[in-house]
Amino acid sequence: MNSPLIECVPNFSEARRPEVVDAIQDSIASVPLVRVLDRHSDLDHNRSVITFVGPPEAVEEAAYRGIAKAAELIDLDQHTGAHPRIGATDVVPFVPISGATLADCVEIAHRLGERVGEELGIPVYLYEAAATRPDRQNLENLRRGQYEGLKHEIATNPDRQPDFGPLRLGPAGATVIGARPFLIAYNVYLTTPDVEIAKKIARAIRHSSGGLRYVKALGLEVDGRAQVSMNLTEYRQTPLARAVELIRREAARYGVAVHHSELVGLIPQEAMVDAAVWYLQLDQFEKGQVLETRLAELSGDAAGRQELVDRGFLDSLASATPTPGGP
Amino acid sequence: MNSPLIECVPNFSEARRPEVVDAIQDSIASVPLVRVLDRHSDLDHNRSVITFVGPPEAVEEAAYRGIAKAAELIDLDQHTGAHPRIGATDVVPFVPISGATLADCVEIAHRLGERVGEELGIPVYLYEAAATRPDRQNLENLRRGQYEGLKHEIATNPDRQPDFGPLRLGPAGATVIGARPFLIAYNVYLTTPDVEIAKKIARAIRHSSGGLRYVKALGLEVDGRAQVSMNLTEYRQTPLARAVELIRREAARYGVAVHHSELVGLIPQEAMVDAAVWYLQLDQFEKGQVLETRLAELSGDAAGRQELVDRGFLDSLASATPTPGGP
Repeated sequence: MNSPLIECVPNFSEARRPEVVDAIQDSIASVPLVRVLDRHSDLDHNRSVITFVGPPEAVEEAAYRGIAKAAELIDLDQHTGAHPRIGATDVVPFVPISGATLADCVEIAHRLGERVGEELGIPVYLYEAAATRPDRQNLENLRRGQYEGLKHEIATNPDRQPDFGPLRLGPAGATVIGARPFLIAYNVYLTTPDVEIAKKIARAIRHSSGGLRYVKALGLEVDGRAQVSMNLTEYRQTPLARAVELIRREAARYGVAVHHSELVGLIPQEAMVDAAVWYLQLDQFEKGQVLETRLAELSGDAAGRQELVDRGFLDSLASATPTPGGP
Repeated sequence: MNSPLIECVPNFSEARRPEVVDAIQDSIASVPLVRVLDRHSDLDHNRSVITFVGPPEAVEEAAYRGIAKAAELIDLDQHTGAHPRIGATDVVPFVPISGATLADCVEIAHRLGERVGEELGIPVYLYEAAATRPDRQNLENLRRGQYEGLKHEIATNPDRQPDFGPLRLGPAGATVIGARPFLIAYNVYLTTPDVEIAKKIARAIRHSSGGLRYVKALGLEVDGRAQVSMNLTEYRQTPLARAVELIRREAARYGVAVHHSELVGLIPQEAMVDAAVWYLQLDQFEKGQVLETRLAELSGDAAGRQELVDRGFLDSLASATPTPGGP
């Protein structure tokens, strides 16, 4: 069977005490079948992002353990940092990778939210695809006023009633939980130090100001170079190559070019292959033509696995590592 | 452990009797751990190509069984077809995919060649990276005169003495065995029916007439469209994107453009990712940023696997499917 694989990318309000982040990471990794793929801490933000994957049930349990450990060790009344936050565990998105859908992840978000509210007494807001109201889809809306502001509003403002948990903030604050497609964090550096050009290009390409549907973007100056910093929120609909080529064309309008690109974190193989297919004009390309994908398909299907059992190669169908790649 | 993975792409002189090709394929697939990835038959050529992968020992055994079955069922005195051939099994290349080197594949070619010569009485010529003389690297040299010509020469021309086996051709003919890097078969269709343009471009880009080092190319007319048909013989040195972009530029010189591309057969993920990295200008990209690669790395290392055993998830380190992808 091609084991379902989902990803979870919780953000915790801690970075300056690495031992605390270690403890949270260990609690996540303590669940069998969960693999921690990445950890990133920002001292200015005083915030850390842990990326982990695994089968849905394991990832749900690992997220719970991480939230519980963070609540134990992080006191928001003591927390300072440049990044807005409302909780020790600030946000917990679930992301389908393969053999799972966004709807599956929404279900997990609901179930985890209820458990966190009841067992840990932490107020939970559901966001993105799991949101219970349209105005709750956006994380920025839910985090308005941050922890300090929410402390006062949660019991008095009906608009800020959590989806689960008490109308009361403890030192662990509140947690936002939800589901979204895989997000690609991608920066394009231009051949100019002029950040105004990057800002104009960001405005041109992002959805909010008239650009591509699933693109968020900002113009920044990084290391003396203008940078268009993007989040691609639905790469299957607004593909990477299209966004980059639009930046390239807009940059040419300003007389500059793309100096280089930078991928922050991970990217699904599919997104890279889709980009290659676009540039190479491989019109009839089938994903199964990628050798490793063909091999995973053959190893992953039930008949194939049964064959491996029959040949004495696998002790049973249960002895299986999650198969990377997907349908 | 990241199990070594090699590929074998034998060509057999049969297509018009599919039941014969079935029997050959079954004999290959009868070896545990071998996966047949692809099968392609050409009725004009009366020739079939079977692509299979697996751990080195399994692939070597499967190749032997395929050669033995072909020798049983194919009589070259009865064979006609448009493609040059000297044997029932005409050529058997071994290709490293991951966790194995070209040298490993050369070793296998030698060992198999000796076994085929001794146990099946079939003369064997080693080619490509396994060749015993520089003038034997090239398949075309070894196939000169085809089966009919070789029948007369093998005992009389010292230059045609096989590397293994008798100085005598039976109805199974002779077999060429060797090792080479992964070959990408790639066609670029132009926005013109003029095959002369495709021929000029092919001449410009292929190594033999002054072009890129690891490119072979022909200009053809296919379905009323000019096509540059390429073999990329060492994509890690002469990458796909470079070859395609050179075709594009040469086409522009003739006032035409690339209509679309076509990949024949399979391609390693690495080659597609490399192409995307080139076009996207992802200068600091690390292969481990592909999520599935990162996951395979984590699942494949010994410590990771031991952890899975300790957690009772794997019965033992032996219960492991080959891990796709690789270093």
